[in-house]
Amino acid sequence: MDLKKLKEIVYQENLNLVKHDLVVLTWGNVSAVDRKKGIMVIKPSGVSYEKMKATDMVVVSLKTGKTINSHYRPSSDTPTHLELYRKFPHIGGIVHTHSPFATAFAQAGLDIVPLGTTHADTFYGAIPCIKKLSKQAIQKDYELNTGKAIVNAFKKLDYEAMPAALLQSHGPFAWGQNAHEAVKNAVTLEAVAKMAFITLRVNPKTPKIDQYLSDKHYQRKHGKNAYYGQK
Amino acid sequence: MDLKKLKEIVYQENLNLVKHDLVVLTWGNVSAVDRKKGIMVIKPSGVSYEKMKATDMVVVSLKTGKTINSHYRPSSDTPTHLELYRKFPHIGGIVHTHSPFATAFAQAGLDIVPLGTTHADTFYGAIPCIKKLSKQAIQKDYELNTGKAIVNAFKKLDYEAMPAALLQSHGPFAWGQNAHEAVKNAVTLEAVAKMAFITLRVNPKTPKIDQYLSDKHYQRKHGKNAYYGQK
Amino acid sequence: MDLKKLKEIVYQENLNLVKHDLVVLTWGNVSAVDRKKGIMVIKPSGVSYEKMKATDMVVVSLKTGKTINSHYRPSSDTPTHLELYRKFPHIGGIVHTHSPFATAFAQAGLDIVPLGTTHADTFYGAIPCIKKLSKQAIQKDYELNTGKAIVNAFKKLDYEAMPAALLQSHGPFAWGQNAHEAVKNAVTLEAVAKMAFITLRVNPKTPKIDQYLSDKHYQRKHGKNAYYGQK
Amino acid sequence: MDLKKLKEIVYQENLNLVKHDLVVLTWGNVSAVDRKKGIMVIKPSGVSYEKMKATDMVVVSLKTGKTINSHYRPSSDTPTHLELYRKFPHIGGIVHTHSPFATAFAQAGLDIVPLGTTHADTFYGAIPCIKKLSKQAIQKDYELNTGKAIVNAFKKLDYEAMPAALLQSHGPFAWGQNAHEAVKNAVTLEAVAKMAFITLRVNPKTPKIDQYLSDKHYQRKHGKNAYYGQK
Repeated sequence: MDLKKLKEIVYQENLNLVKHDLVVLTWGNVSAVDRKKGIMVIKPSGVSYEKMKATDMVVVSLKTGKTINSHYRPSSDTPTHLELYRKFPHIGGIVHTHSPFATAFAQAGLDIVPLGTTHADTFYGAIPCIKKLSKQAIQKDYELNTGKAIVNAFKKLDYEAMPAALLQSHGPFAWGQNAHEAVKNAVTLEAVAKMAFITLRVNPKTPKIDQYLSDKHYQRKHGKNAYYGQK
Repeated sequence: MDLKKLKEIVYQENLNLVKHDLVVLTWGNVSAVDRKKGIMVIKPSGVSYEKMKATDMVVVSLKTGKTINSHYRPSSDTPTHLELYRKFPHIGGIVHTHSPFATAFAQAGLDIVPLGTTHADTFYGAIPCIKKLSKQAIQKDYELNTGKAIVNAFKKLDYEAMPAALLQSHGPFAWGQNAHEAVKNAVTLEAVAKMAFITLRVNPKTPKIDQYLSDKHYQRKHGKNAYYGQK
Repeated sequence: MDLKKLKEIVYQENLNLVKHDLVVLTWGNVSAVDRKKGIMVIKPSGVSYEKMKATDMVVVSLKTGKTINSHYRPSSDTPTHLELYRKFPHIGGIVHTHSPFATAFAQAGLDIVPLGTTHADTFYGAIPCIKKLSKQAIQKDYELNTGKAIVNAFKKLDYEAMPAALLQSHGPFAWGQNAHEAVKNAVTLEAVAKMAFITLRVNPKTPKIDQYLSDKHYQRKHGKNAYYGQK
Repeated sequence: MDLKKLKEIVYQENLNLVKHDLVVLTWGNVSAVDRKKGIMVIKPSGVSYEKMKATDMVVVSLKTGKTINSHYRPSSDTPTHLELYRKFPHIGGIVHTHSPFATAFAQAGLDIVPLGTTHADTFYGAIPCIKKLSKQAIQKDYELNTGKAIVNAFKKLDYEAMPAALLQSHGPFAWGQNAHEAVKNAVTLEAVAKMAFITLRVNPKTPKIDQYLSDKHYQRKHGKNAYYGQK
């Protein structure tokens, strides 16, 4: 894809975080990858959503992690994004936010158990909360180790059927086929977390959704014979 | 009614779901029926609210369930809508959303008990939460069986005095004389669910509204001698 | 005051309910009184905020309760408003809403106890929740009896220092020197109810504000030597 | 700095409180200091955000506390602001709000314990809730004594690493290098308080963030080798 167009997409999807109330101030970031060119495009670090322009998006080499022809520093979470692109070959976009309900589950150190079809439409099973890093992993190469912790947790999970994770004491990451799908998954994650919060207050003993209902909803949207959406 | 006009109405009422914060992304759908023509008009499946146009609304035969002269597939919930139109002869519009508070009660598997006049003005009695479908009913003709489960639950209820239901592990459906009234009932359902949530946190032993106060509010708005609103 | 101007004020203050997120659909109403002319101006019943115009506001005689030269019926809560204007001689405006947090306390049947200075700046003491009416009082002259129940509860309270009340199983009324002040009190009531809700979840044993801190805040804003605001 | 420009900044940052949903009606205030000129500029007391203009911002002498060439009275919280500017030499802006979640923790009389990196990015340690003033301190020079109570509590705290405090039964103050940073800290405080509220409902036994993770996040943003944001 044309680099100018990719920057425009990443810019627009970062603005979508604001539009969907997932971020305040300069928090959060969206990236997209161009695997042919071996580059990732990501929001610059600490720049306000109101002032930034499409041309401010930062280009980073997938291999070296270094910025390419960019006047800004990339998001401080860049090494996490890079690690995910390297190990999850079918994703095209990544989102990190501190959206309040998803972050609260992360802080609480709890998985978000599937309680209904809103969850099952997008996430197959419980959204995992990845336990906190060791002191060593935090003090050196923290952001890279954050990516490694996610990748490690997904040895037992399908990253395409579970396009998000919570990091304990921190917050959520979400991903998808491209930046737009990643943002949609981040929006859904926050909505699902909010519903889980309310549900568990109303009935602390709410059971998990039945496996066959979960299967039905996930398959009608993502399965071989999916009939949700347009062809 | 002119088909073009009906599509415009269905389109506008779908946008009203966004305006009233009942939906995010492509979730939710509104339909309306033209019983003389034997057709239903409904939102296309998985199309974004921002991009869709009135002419994208999908026409479906009430009898056969097949689309008529439409370039899009209808909402995947179409068989549920059709079943309700067939068995509830006085309704003209149906709304399905995943609005957070109503969905949370659905996930929790709980009726919304009437706790005040906001509830009683629109819903006569407890808003029922319909228990989950069997494995068989989910695996084959899921959406049709969802409609049948609602119809079955309303054998003991008046669908005009109770224009909404929750589906366990899923979310709410609401209906009304036309699409606009159905949307108003969906908005009221979410507001009532939110108030019930807060009320039960503040006082878990809140009693149901007295029957005569409920009667008074329902009758002054919907009864023979109603004096709410304009003649 | 010129009647046209009074209608414009009542119209604008009704729109302010929407702006401050206190109402949805056609719920809620604001009125203002002109004691010299012996009239009250109030929102028409069940008319949408989007479609109504200043000239649609309804004029009602304070004495007879009958509408004067108006093409619409007044709010169904009109007899409650009239009773308050008759018995609270220093108020000029009244607001009724179903704002969610204040309504939840009303449904729960609980006073809103003063927990901080946000409360004390506007409300001197606990905002009372008036117990539900008897079956008889509801079945005949319900709205008038609602007004009488408020007036009766305020035999022991100063309606100027406590410009709001909750009605059990129903919702809040607020009032003030004029319609604008009444709307401000309704906005403050909802904010105070929301804060009380959060506070009591965080610490169920939160004590009442100290009387001398409450006195300080109320007096610096409303007392003889008030120094809040402009002269 | 040019006085006209400083008034414009204070005006804009007061409007930012509205934009970030931290205030309703006329609540809240932002000030900024010009230490060379020995003046503070602050919002006028009780004036609505919609009607006020940049030229309405009030100039107050840091030394005498008296207004200088101003047609309005300054915020009633002026003596609190002045005391903080006098004793915290490196701050340039102060914000006071009654934002709901931060105010609820203040009303509950509880510190906001650090539960995640959103907190640790801005606040080093628990955000202190300063115990209520004595009757005497409230009845005479209340606003000055409020400032003194904050200063006293910070004898054991670094006001640059902890740019906010809660006042029991009242609400939050936040500050920063300038008015814009102070508003950002007030926004972050409310977001952190909301997340803490949700987190503690989801898991009442949520542990504090590990000290080394807190250190890492605080240092990567504020430390000598900070790499968050742009150079």
